[in-house]
Amino acid sequence: MEAGEGVSSATPTEEMNGAGNLMDFLDEPFPDVSTYEDFHTIDWLREKSRDTDRHRKITSKSKESIWELIKSLLDAWSGWVVMLLIGLLSGTLAGVIDLAVDWMTDLKEGVCLSAFWYSHEQCCWTSNETTFDDRDKCPQWQKWAELMTGHTEGAGAYVLNYFLYILWALLFSFLAVSLVRVFAPYACGSGIPEIKTILSGFIIRGYLGKWTLLIKPVTLVLAVSSGLSLGKEGPLVHVACCCGNLFCSLFSKYSKNEAKRREVSYYFPLKTLWRSFFAALVAAFTLRSINPFGNSRLVLFYVEYHTPWYMAELVPFILLGVFGGLWGTLFIRANIAWCRRRKTTQLGKYPVLEVIAVTGITALLAYPNPYTRRSTSELISELFNDCGALESSQLCDYINNPNMSRPVDDIPDRPAGPGVYNALWQLALALIFKIVITIFTFGMKIPSGLFIPSMAVGAIAGRIVGIAVEQIAYHHHDWIIFKNWCRPGADCVTPGLYAMVGAAACLGGVTRMTVSLVVIMFELTGGLEYIVPLMAAAVTSKWVADAFGKEGIYESHIQLNGYPYLDVRDEFTHRTLATDVMRPRRNDPPLAVLTQDSTTVEDVETLIKDTDYNGFPVVVSRESERLIGFVQRRDLTLAIKNARQKQDGVVSSSVVYFTEDAPQLPASNPQPLKLRRILNLSPFTVTDHTPMETVVDIFRKLGLRQCLVTRSGRLLGIITKKDVLRHMAQMMNQDPESIMFN
Amino acid sequence: MEAGEGVSSATPTEEMNGAGNLMDFLDEPFPDVSTYEDFHTIDWLREKSRDTDRHRKITSKSKESIWELIKSLLDAWSGWVVMLLIGLLSGTLAGVIDLAVDWMTDLKEGVCLSAFWYSHEQCCWTSNETTFDDRDKCPQWQKWAELMTGHTEGAGAYVLNYFLYILWALLFSFLAVSLVRVFAPYACGSGIPEIKTILSGFIIRGYLGKWTLLIKPVTLVLAVSSGLSLGKEGPLVHVACCCGNLFCSLFSKYSKNEAKRREVSYYFPLKTLWRSFFAALVAAFTLRSINPFGNSRLVLFYVEYHTPWYMAELVPFILLGVFGGLWGTLFIRANIAWCRRRKTTQLGKYPVLEVIAVTGITALLAYPNPYTRRSTSELISELFNDCGALESSQLCDYINNPNMSRPVDDIPDRPAGPGVYNALWQLALALIFKIVITIFTFGMKIPSGLFIPSMAVGAIAGRIVGIAVEQIAYHHHDWIIFKNWCRPGADCVTPGLYAMVGAAACLGGVTRMTVSLVVIMFELTGGLEYIVPLMAAAVTSKWVADAFGKEGIYESHIQLNGYPYLDVRDEFTHRTLATDVMRPRRNDPPLAVLTQDSTTVEDVETLIKDTDYNGFPVVVSRESERLIGFVQRRDLTLAIKNARQKQDGVVSSSVVYFTEDAPQLPASNPQPLKLRRILNLSPFTVTDHTPMETVVDIFRKLGLRQCLVTRSGRLLGIITKKDVLRHMAQMMNQDPESIMFN
Repeated sequence: MEAGEGVSSATPTEEMNGAGNLMDFLDEPFPDVSTYEDFHTIDWLREKSRDTDRHRKITSKSKESIWELIKSLLDAWSGWVVMLLIGLLSGTLAGVIDLAVDWMTDLKEGVCLSAFWYSHEQCCWTSNETTFDDRDKCPQWQKWAELMTGHTEGAGAYVLNYFLYILWALLFSFLAVSLVRVFAPYACGSGIPEIKTILSGFIIRGYLGKWTLLIKPVTLVLAVSSGLSLGKEGPLVHVACCCGNLFCSLFSKYSKNEAKRREVSYYFPLKTLWRSFFAALVAAFTLRSINPFGNSRLVLFYVEYHTPWYMAELVPFILLGVFGGLWGTLFIRANIAWCRRRKTTQLGKYPVLEVIAVTGITALLAYPNPYTRRSTSELISELFNDCGALESSQLCDYINNPNMSRPVDDIPDRPAGPGVYNALWQLALALIFKIVITIFTFGMKIPSGLFIPSMAVGAIAGRIVGIAVEQIAYHHHDWIIFKNWCRPGADCVTPGLYAMVGAAACLGGVTRMTVSLVVIMFELTGGLEYIVPLMAAAVTSKWVADAFGKEGIYESHIQLNGYPYLDVRDEFTHRTLATDVMRPRRNDPPLAVLTQDSTTVEDVETLIKDTDYNGFPVVVSRESERLIGFVQRRDLTLAIKNARQKQDGVVSSSVVYFTEDAPQLPASNPQPLKLRRILNLSPFTVTDHTPMETVVDIFRKLGLRQCLVTRSGRLLGIITKKDVLRHMAQMMNQDPESIMFN
Repeated sequence: MEAGEGVSSATPTEEMNGAGNLMDFLDEPFPDVSTYEDFHTIDWLREKSRDTDRHRKITSKSKESIWELIKSLLDAWSGWVVMLLIGLLSGTLAGVIDLAVDWMTDLKEGVCLSAFWYSHEQCCWTSNETTFDDRDKCPQWQKWAELMTGHTEGAGAYVLNYFLYILWALLFSFLAVSLVRVFAPYACGSGIPEIKTILSGFIIRGYLGKWTLLIKPVTLVLAVSSGLSLGKEGPLVHVACCCGNLFCSLFSKYSKNEAKRREVSYYFPLKTLWRSFFAALVAAFTLRSINPFGNSRLVLFYVEYHTPWYMAELVPFILLGVFGGLWGTLFIRANIAWCRRRKTTQLGKYPVLEVIAVTGITALLAYPNPYTRRSTSELISELFNDCGALESSQLCDYINNPNMSRPVDDIPDRPAGPGVYNALWQLALALIFKIVITIFTFGMKIPSGLFIPSMAVGAIAGRIVGIAVEQIAYHHHDWIIFKNWCRPGADCVTPGLYAMVGAAACLGGVTRMTVSLVVIMFELTGGLEYIVPLMAAAVTSKWVADAFGKEGIYESHIQLNGYPYLDVRDEFTHRTLATDVMRPRRNDPPLAVLTQDSTTVEDVETLIKDTDYNGFPVVVSRESERLIGFVQRRDLTLAIKNARQKQDGVVSSSVVYFTEDAPQLPASNPQPLKLRRILNLSPFTVTDHTPMETVVDIFRKLGLRQCLVTRSGRLLGIITKKDVLRHMAQMMNQDPESIMFN
């Protein structure tokens, strides 16, 4: 029994952290070799213990001099500085993008004569000749046909405007897809699946790089302005992550530690929550001072309703939830099928042509319908808003009650006029159009988010249902269900609320992030009043969608691309054991191991050359197979290269040893090489009988990269993160070979 | 190399889960023995895998018949049912408690003649003779002196009222402390430290039991009504937890699995978040239909301000943050010192006397000051509110500007009248009184929370600062800092906002839950507008308080009581290794182990009798010390008892074996006993070189109960949760013997 050995000696500790210290020492002579290879996963435990070492070093140094103290304080504050910078830059970018999108969207229709850089709204806002009722029409703003031919009406002007609208759209999208292809291929898509994967501890070099940061905002503006059915929210998250990465690289605390950079995901310490909060606040303030929405509000769709909702309305709300769930399922299945076809067929080879074609079709079909011609966020805003007295929209064309003398904010239900019926038809067409075109748009090689398109689908459906319920309630207020709450002349149904509920349901069906969703919707309405409708719809939508498949759109894309992402939410409930998953399998060659004191330098070099494993277990001897540690491939390569160059007497036949003391060798043997410093003496082990459920849990919670499998102290095999992911894919009847990276 | 063995055979899986199956089989013959002992920690991994087994069994059964399918659906829904019930019951309790407290607090001063069960407000609300200005005075409400002697004014009436006020207070608190002592000793205190410990996986039988649920609400009402400086929020959380435990015991899914019951803490699955949300919603609706606050609002202090805040005001806000931090530190240190004295001296033996004495002193000192006489929540409400035109409070006694013709909600700054100066003095005295008395009140043997007292301290300090800033700004509006934003006649300082900021700062200083705090304060104000002041104060307060000691009041009480609580927030950064912590220590007797095939029944029984460990490692042989598994003490006891009773041929000299096949024994030996079914073949192991940082992380994240320590496959020792906690206490220079339980 060796219990209690080394209880108070510092030696094992020193050795334990030797790997970390050596890393620093090794980093300098070979600055081009980075800690992890591209497309590899990181080892959270190792990174974390490296950070603790760093922290201890700084703390102990800080007692030496004032200068070191200041340096340690700066180090402690660098997290906050990074957050401040991220907040400032991403807030500014968001504001500028909004302004640019507004201007360019309007540019497709016309131009402001007084100042060409004004959007339609700004143009007419600064004009003195506009009355409040007609605030969309002002002489300074001219459509292209008017400017070029002088005609504002007639078929000729309409066709010319239509033609130029399509031309501008094609130009914008062509520019967008070309910029992406030439300068930053990683700037396409929403970026959310990749960011989820990177945060879970995976290296994709350049994904959050400077080029992406430069190109993505520009192409995003172009893509949104071209009128394609896509949103800017997802790509903005990607842009903000690029900001974060950029500023992290300024501070060695973050640039040299892959776990510290990803602090949010596995280890979510409270202080990170605080800091995110702080960054969001700074960004919000920056955004407010830029004021892109023109209303001093921080939210995109500020809505205020004045009527409560009634229990009976839960029925349509839940129906909207069912619709949202069905839409989510349909969208995910169809979009993934289309994206798979793009990956596997000739289609994927012509991304520019694809974007051009989809833009052309979108513009061609969108222009004739007023609800699809304008930008999607304007559409959502109109659908969310309740009809006030001053509202000039077609949707508010109700037949006025002559003896109405209510205040503006409490307009009773009225019969619908011809404008409303007309709008209903156009909305129904817009709904079908949006549903179909979004499926083909999301996943093209341009920046594209899907918050806005999903919300648009839900808002259109919700508004249609809302108007229907309102008209039924008005015309049949003697029905038993309406009797109690819907007297004639009362304001009992708010179609705008239905639009919001529908939007929440559809967003929930697609992304499955129900809780965050309700919080987002909270932010929009700003009250506890409407949480029940929103929650009812969101939960229904989630249940309905989950019944057809557990994965949201982002998880589906992660799977489609084979990213090694271990979802926290997946519950692994199969009865397999570690022994079923570990390698080597039954008929495989034995595991590549090193022995503690009988391998030569040449053996090690052969092993490194012949295999591509990330590391090798070290055992006492090949006979006993008792595990003593694990050594990283990279450390081994560097250490041997280093020893060969700098240490005299180290030749191919030198014995490599990992023990404290050199092995007893004949005098004729060349000088042995001690490598204990790079040996990880605390590799993670499980027994071969450990249920995979537990193993998955360990990988997830501790962020391991690999785990060794033993039985009664003998080394049997190894399980890597990739093995775990493959096994999980297999258990879910998916192709295990789809897990692509290491 | 035995790699690949049993890759596709189901046998090891069966065996692995054998322990779980046996548990069920063993549970029945000995129904009185429960899975864990009192004051022991639970093993999360084990409980989780038991739940997965249960789930698998139900899922596979559900395919057999319709009845089983219904049962499985009911099982899946039981989580939601429990949440619904919890929401209903705790919402009802909260409402009833509020109404009872209102009535009994007023009972100390007088009685409603029209209906004695009306509180002062309800009494005057139903009276027709009240005008809006004088809504606190109505003939139906009579003070005791008026009722008994007919006099309303004069020294005699005052003394009589004063005397009866103290008498009622003493009666209430005597009842409260007696009920607690006789029926439910666990009902005292706020319960938050204990709940945190229980949620982290610790068993305290009866803490969440029926008696606590019955007695705590009643005594809480009595304690709050007695006028002691304590709040009801913390105890309400305890009561709600009791509701949860009660309803959990109705469903076997929860009642039989200790981890499932605590789903919130270590494993916080998304679905639990959803369910909590749902329960909170149900509770909120129940509460609203009871409507205790009389304003149809769900929040205690509904506030709306009409003026923005200015940058320069951040200086007083940050000063309030500093005050909050200092108050937090002072309170925690003084309160812990007093509680330690109570634990260690004669004082602790007279809890009833202590409560009576503190109540007497509180009532005696509180009555003369109008700000301490009323209930603390009324006080906070008044301090938070801004002065409107109709406000009759002394705090709003400003000198009116004769040419003022502003709307009610935008009253400009005015010079303070004599009432305000008078109020300032009374508030200052109230502040000192509250600070001192709260230190002695929190921790007595009655239900007591400290949200309300902490907020009161902060609100008083904040209001004083706010009025001071307001008056300086009014009288010196030509100073450079006020020039830009504080012109005469403008409304530039909101003293109520200062009170709210102060309350947030003090609450933050005491509890350190800064983020949740800002969210709570959000709920109160309902806008993004004031988040910066609140955040500035809360962060300052946290920094100041953290500079004096990292622990909040709940963590300090956990430590004082020696609960085995492993805080997620504690960062362990010392360089110790597993070998420094594991037992046996250097001079201890060797570890108590079983061998896989050479221990006799008698040996096992001796081992169980002589030691009190929770379980024993099983090794191949005492010579090789290679670990093969771990066996729970309880399983071992039950299995041997069972075998002795039911299995023929098992005698004291029978060999116990844990291998697949029986060992080769001489024919003369009695029949051996196979115990492989109760052997856990996947015990958690770390090497002796593993840094304690990693070990702490593993215990925290995986919720282990114990972990075995090996070197090169040999068993060296064991680390239990208690060892980890002791070591952490030692590293933080605390007494390791303070960790009391197993």
